[in-house]
Amino acid sequence: MYTLPGEYYHSEEIYGRELEQIFYQRWQLACREEQVAEPGDFLTVPVGDESIIVTRTRNRDIRAHFNVCRHRGTQICAEDEGHFTNDVIQCPYHAWQYDLDGALKGAPLMRDVPGFDKKDYSLHAAHVHLWGGFVFINLADSPAPFEEEMGALIGRFGDWRLPELRIAHHLPYRLKCNWKLIIQNYQECYHCPGVHPLLSDWTPFQNAVHDCLEGAVIGGFMTLTKKRGSMTMDGEAAAPPVCNVSGDDLQRVHYYSVFPNLLLTPHPDYVLYHLIRPVSVDEITSDCYFLLHPNILNDADRMQRFQSAVEFWDMTNKQDWAVCEQMQLGTRSRRFKRGRYAPQEDILYALDREVLKALGELD
Amino acid sequence: MYTLPGEYYHSEEIYGRELEQIFYQRWQLACREEQVAEPGDFLTVPVGDESIIVTRTRNRDIRAHFNVCRHRGTQICAEDEGHFTNDVIQCPYHAWQYDLDGALKGAPLMRDVPGFDKKDYSLHAAHVHLWGGFVFINLADSPAPFEEEMGALIGRFGDWRLPELRIAHHLPYRLKCNWKLIIQNYQECYHCPGVHPLLSDWTPFQNAVHDCLEGAVIGGFMTLTKKRGSMTMDGEAAAPPVCNVSGDDLQRVHYYSVFPNLLLTPHPDYVLYHLIRPVSVDEITSDCYFLLHPNILNDADRMQRFQSAVEFWDMTNKQDWAVCEQMQLGTRSRRFKRGRYAPQEDILYALDREVLKALGELD
Amino acid sequence: MYTLPGEYYHSEEIYGRELEQIFYQRWQLACREEQVAEPGDFLTVPVGDESIIVTRTRNRDIRAHFNVCRHRGTQICAEDEGHFTNDVIQCPYHAWQYDLDGALKGAPLMRDVPGFDKKDYSLHAAHVHLWGGFVFINLADSPAPFEEEMGALIGRFGDWRLPELRIAHHLPYRLKCNWKLIIQNYQECYHCPGVHPLLSDWTPFQNAVHDCLEGAVIGGFMTLTKKRGSMTMDGEAAAPPVCNVSGDDLQRVHYYSVFPNLLLTPHPDYVLYHLIRPVSVDEITSDCYFLLHPNILNDADRMQRFQSAVEFWDMTNKQDWAVCEQMQLGTRSRRFKRGRYAPQEDILYALDREVLKALGELD
Repeated sequence: MYTLPGEYYHSEEIYGRELEQIFYQRWQLACREEQVAEPGDFLTVPVGDESIIVTRTRNRDIRAHFNVCRHRGTQICAEDEGHFTNDVIQCPYHAWQYDLDGALKGAPLMRDVPGFDKKDYSLHAAHVHLWGGFVFINLADSPAPFEEEMGALIGRFGDWRLPELRIAHHLPYRLKCNWKLIIQNYQECYHCPGVHPLLSDWTPFQNAVHDCLEGAVIGGFMTLTKKRGSMTMDGEAAAPPVCNVSGDDLQRVHYYSVFPNLLLTPHPDYVLYHLIRPVSVDEITSDCYFLLHPNILNDADRMQRFQSAVEFWDMTNKQDWAVCEQMQLGTRSRRFKRGRYAPQEDILYALDREVLKALGELD
Repeated sequence: MYTLPGEYYHSEEIYGRELEQIFYQRWQLACREEQVAEPGDFLTVPVGDESIIVTRTRNRDIRAHFNVCRHRGTQICAEDEGHFTNDVIQCPYHAWQYDLDGALKGAPLMRDVPGFDKKDYSLHAAHVHLWGGFVFINLADSPAPFEEEMGALIGRFGDWRLPELRIAHHLPYRLKCNWKLIIQNYQECYHCPGVHPLLSDWTPFQNAVHDCLEGAVIGGFMTLTKKRGSMTMDGEAAAPPVCNVSGDDLQRVHYYSVFPNLLLTPHPDYVLYHLIRPVSVDEITSDCYFLLHPNILNDADRMQRFQSAVEFWDMTNKQDWAVCEQMQLGTRSRRFKRGRYAPQEDILYALDREVLKALGELD
Repeated sequence: MYTLPGEYYHSEEIYGRELEQIFYQRWQLACREEQVAEPGDFLTVPVGDESIIVTRTRNRDIRAHFNVCRHRGTQICAEDEGHFTNDVIQCPYHAWQYDLDGALKGAPLMRDVPGFDKKDYSLHAAHVHLWGGFVFINLADSPAPFEEEMGALIGRFGDWRLPELRIAHHLPYRLKCNWKLIIQNYQECYHCPGVHPLLSDWTPFQNAVHDCLEGAVIGGFMTLTKKRGSMTMDGEAAAPPVCNVSGDDLQRVHYYSVFPNLLLTPHPDYVLYHLIRPVSVDEITSDCYFLLHPNILNDADRMQRFQSAVEFWDMTNKQDWAVCEQMQLGTRSRRFKRGRYAPQEDILYALDREVLKALGELD
């Protein structure tokens, strides 16, 4: 099993096709539902060169609109988040007004333009699908059904009651590597003994099991050796088990990459996820979030204990970012053609094939 | 009427052609005559990737030279402005010397080179034309006559006696948008009610009249509602009328875009102009100048009152820059094909056609 | 004699070919032997987009390895210099281990991979040649013999006993110009009267003699007018003559460019050299080093006197960098086609031909 050729991490041409064929065509994570909690709340979500407004309507539906006024193309929202006053999305330039569903309601002085019908000038819509409290979006005109692309998610992690969980902490990062390297890094623990001594103590890499090996959702779990353990600085749980988590799951950390931009890591006592966004062929942002039940969030003592999980993952994230950035640098070499995967990296081979399929280079 | 497609604000290829066909071929503003007041004074003017030395000779003529030594291509002047000592333009590298007319006078050790004749090694010249105290340059080998390209300027604004006015203030800006967006912004007041509340109070946008709708010089005027008013923080004139300005012009602010890089705005009591320079496809500098008669300039009390005009336009400029930068961002979207002009934006359609003609895409 | 066209200093395409045909194919300076003094000491040397590890083995041989792990292409050494503990070169990602000769010794969990043989996974080697205490490397698969490419170096400067000298001082610079401009600047003193008044006092440019006019090694000498003089702030020697230097060499400063990245300048009393590295088509680093015999280096009084040489060259370097950066700017002009060399610049014509030959554009 050989790795992708080096150009897949450095070629502007390939990166351009990845934006077109993957980020502008596939279902991907935008945010959590709670981030647009009330009607009129909005978030602007960057997707490659695009910007998407995610908002909630009066009916409490979540909608996604391209952040582009239909008059002359002005970006409507410059802020990362905010609230639309009076349920009006108003372009700052010429004051065209849209409702939260994206319908054009006000277009000053356009009344008498022959053939101009407001109905033809709604904001361009992106598709929305909710799962587990996550807001997924799709920028394609006619996307494949979410359930088809993300079939392996359906019914999974029910015991965590994901929709009920809330963001307890956010660690934002920016790093100099191709977006695929961070997903590859996430999906193998061959590097753990050398890079993550503490993680390897709590979950020896020999115990990794992959139970989902094909398609957009790929993953498995690692076994905690400590009873009632978890990924924290001392290896003890950071909180009581999440909702209905029980049985084997009390000793497991699940690692799922939800192609192309979500890394979902349910622990017995909390849920971790990373939202990966390409900035350019060799730069990404990685936003690491922790989810807890509101019962814990509202308990100051328990939240103090929980910091041990945040500290653990901040340390572990930075260990990973360093090696990913070094892999980005090394794969530029003309002497690097293709690397060779170890047997423990078979899942990366599956990920590479998922990319090649999306690019139409593999059936 | 539809806008230009989005690529006209983002494509490196189109930007390259704009430099070639417009900035390297057309008459454009370089500076004011007063900025090279004395023989030997010079200014270096960036034009795309070129740098042009504007200087004044012993005969008080103004000359423009490419800032490139004929020996090995070294840029001669690194400073933005200065004075050539002893009327000598000397290359800092190998000390080749030119007179203020650009003729090669000294070329050390070249005397005995067979076939070398100093007459063949003058600085490359750019063409110069003076109008209204403004220095226009043209980088083409054989430019169209200024009067032909800029016919609409001839005889206009005579009452302001523009050559007698002097720079009273300079506001430099750098902003992230394509150069055309700033000219479009200047030529419509459809955006004024939302973006410029104070400006709209002094000159309601319904009063805009376009009296020059085709060619390189496009514009019209807006009517001041306040008697003896002007564009200042309190809407009162900042100074007495300029020179011979009288009659209707006492209640008008004229807005003329002189394609491709001058926005000329004669007020009853002062003259405002913006010099626009592309830095890259998505970045420009905009230098905003105020002209007054020396009588005012030398009167400290009147200059204090005049600050109200400077304050007004600094505020108004920044309001415009913000929406122009947001339009730059939004028009990147793949969903933005062409926008739709309102009737009040008809003049922008004329500007777009001027660009397309210059690019040879329209007859 | 005409210069290269301007595009040779600005075209990404030509720069790309220069990396391929010159920097990835030709012998070039990496460092001094003393910089990897002990077994396990290492330096990472950037060569275009490549990074090369130079290290010393237990047998005290010097080896050069591509800084790329054979497993998945990770850059192994992130530091500029360091020491390999226990003679092991270990990739930080998955802990593959190589010995100092580059042989793969440890590849965790690869034992049972069918057809995997460690012998096939040594670090990629670059070729090494030592001359005068300098470490030259060559990244090609099958380089021409060093003696063939650099024939003119063999036997030269024997009196300086270069291998015995040690680095006394290092001046690092980064400047905005194409790499060829700095070599051209080094090889002509036509610019000296205007740019370097002090240097011209000590070694009038009329005295320049070129004795090596073709091939990769090009140079000559200039004559010191002051007896026992040298290039220092007061024109007096900075130190006693180097080793066996005597006779005419006591009054000469030799200037040799060793194509493509070494400028070697033996003085009577010290040796100066510049290591030039392209960063991009219009940016380079220039590292300026001074070599002295250890006898001087260990003598505090003499080292105090020696500062006069450092001060002189820091001043002189900066004078050169300024004009090189201005030449980079000026040669962008569309009006600059080719410049014309003065007779005193004939050696630059030879340098240009060396570049064109390397690019396959000249036989």
